[in-house]
Amino acid sequence: MITARTAIKVQFNHLDPMGVVWHGNYIAFMEAARSDLLGMIGYNYPEMDQSGYFWPIVDMKVKYIRPGRFGQVLDIQTTLKEYENRLCVDYLIRDAATGEKMTKASTIQVAVEKVSGEMQFRSPDCFITLVEAFGA
Amino acid sequence: MITARTAIKVQFNHLDPMGVVWHGNYIAFMEAARSDLLGMIGYNYPEMDQSGYFWPIVDMKVKYIRPGRFGQVLDIQTTLKEYENRLCVDYLIRDAATGEKMTKASTIQVAVEKVSGEMQFRSPDCFITLVEAFGA
Amino acid sequence: MITARTAIKVQFNHLDPMGVVWHGNYIAFMEAARSDLLGMIGYNYPEMDQSGYFWPIVDMKVKYIRPGRFGQVLDIQTTLKEYENRLCVDYLIRDAATGEKMTKASTIQVAVEKVSGEMQFRSPDCFITLVEAFGA
Amino acid sequence: MITARTAIKVQFNHLDPMGVVWHGNYIAFMEAARSDLLGMIGYNYPEMDQSGYFWPIVDMKVKYIRPGRFGQVLDIQTTLKEYENRLCVDYLIRDAATGEKMTKASTIQVAVEKVSGEMQFRSPDCFITLVEAFGA
Repeated sequence: MITARTAIKVQFNHLDPMGVVWHGNYIAFMEAARSDLLGMIGYNYPEMDQSGYFWPIVDMKVKYIRPGRFGQVLDIQTTLKEYENRLCVDYLIRDAATGEKMTKASTIQVAVEKVSGEMQFRSPDCFITLVEAFGA
Repeated sequence: MITARTAIKVQFNHLDPMGVVWHGNYIAFMEAARSDLLGMIGYNYPEMDQSGYFWPIVDMKVKYIRPGRFGQVLDIQTTLKEYENRLCVDYLIRDAATGEKMTKASTIQVAVEKVSGEMQFRSPDCFITLVEAFGA
Repeated sequence: MITARTAIKVQFNHLDPMGVVWHGNYIAFMEAARSDLLGMIGYNYPEMDQSGYFWPIVDMKVKYIRPGRFGQVLDIQTTLKEYENRLCVDYLIRDAATGEKMTKASTIQVAVEKVSGEMQFRSPDCFITLVEAFGA
Repeated sequence: MITARTAIKVQFNHLDPMGVVWHGNYIAFMEAARSDLLGMIGYNYPEMDQSGYFWPIVDMKVKYIRPGRFGQVLDIQTTLKEYENRLCVDYLIRDAATGEKMTKASTIQVAVEKVSGEMQFRSPDCFITLVEAFGA
């Protein structure tokens, strides 16, 4: 299981009138965390681009358990759940100080070949090779 | 079935380096659409606030079917799916010109009493009354 | 003087914990308004792109007079102030209902030739022609 | 002169179709940097709130020199330029690796008493005391 950890500090502009993080802002936190996970494997956005594929998000699920507050440091643990046919990532967001669960989420991405615009039903070999080399 | 329609035009700042709407921006589009639906019923954010309840999002699911592009007008149809125990909204985002499906989503909110901070297992009467008056 | 008008409705996710629009969100409102102005002239983002130039913002000034609130409709009047050597736009944001001034701003953009990456000290002819044809 | 340093890493969702940071996103970077500066002094957003004042931004100026790119680490140096009558902060954003100047900016905030809603023409004593204690 390939996992990464990312710390995000809640800023004033993340907050809504209730004084808690607006739920849509977690998607940006997850983007940063997924980027760290993929960067670790060596297949971050620039490498995706160079490999000739887009990887659009096709599915996203988020469960909000506790609200984030100003100055709180969020510890986001990302896990690569699937990579052979599609790229599935799980996210567990916890309060960095107490370990309390804040948010759970998952995303699914599929490879789309840039030249043809065709969705791939198997992940490109370049990605599979990087994942398996990293995991070994 | 209570439904509303909201039109959103894709702007430059919604786009990512692929030239399509970054997936996280749909959450803001859904926020505007849900606000129109709740405003129609007479229970938008100011009325929620005055009624003594917060309504945090506890669950969100999004399926991305086609990418949004610059200048495209998105037609968001919102449907109130549940209201008695929690507030569930479905979203169908289509291209306003062609009717093609772009994105499907759902959100679940629960009422939290401001004074006590307690989550409500039944929606407050004020909300139920408004929904039933509107629907009748 | 070439001017355009754009209406923007303040949404929940634009608000900060003070219950007013977070100052950074006005930049997105200005982006939508400038896009309407340039679209009217026939030189919106897709036409910029096709003409072989980027137009990065190099300077921005914003004065905040009154705070925007939930549900308020903002009337943004944009004026093309300069076009021959650089693209300067003024923004006057007013409450659509009362006409009260909310925010004043200005942006400056310069053309950068895509092929060479060189900043242009005179606007490209294609843009000047469109502005003068529109204004005439 | 009171100064602070903040590092921000450019993420995918900060980028526009040109592959560079959309100019409006720098306002969020500046918000995080100003929060670090004010936190160092002991007058961050929670302390502002407890002291009985809002501090809205009334003026902002930004000069964009070089575009930010994916994965780049930005080094934001903030300087408290005025504090007695209003809160003025200067921002110098540089590439963390090369020291190249990317963006220069400034913001002005004024205190507004929460109870009366009145703008203060002198900064509240609590803030002045904290600044002078820190600077001494």
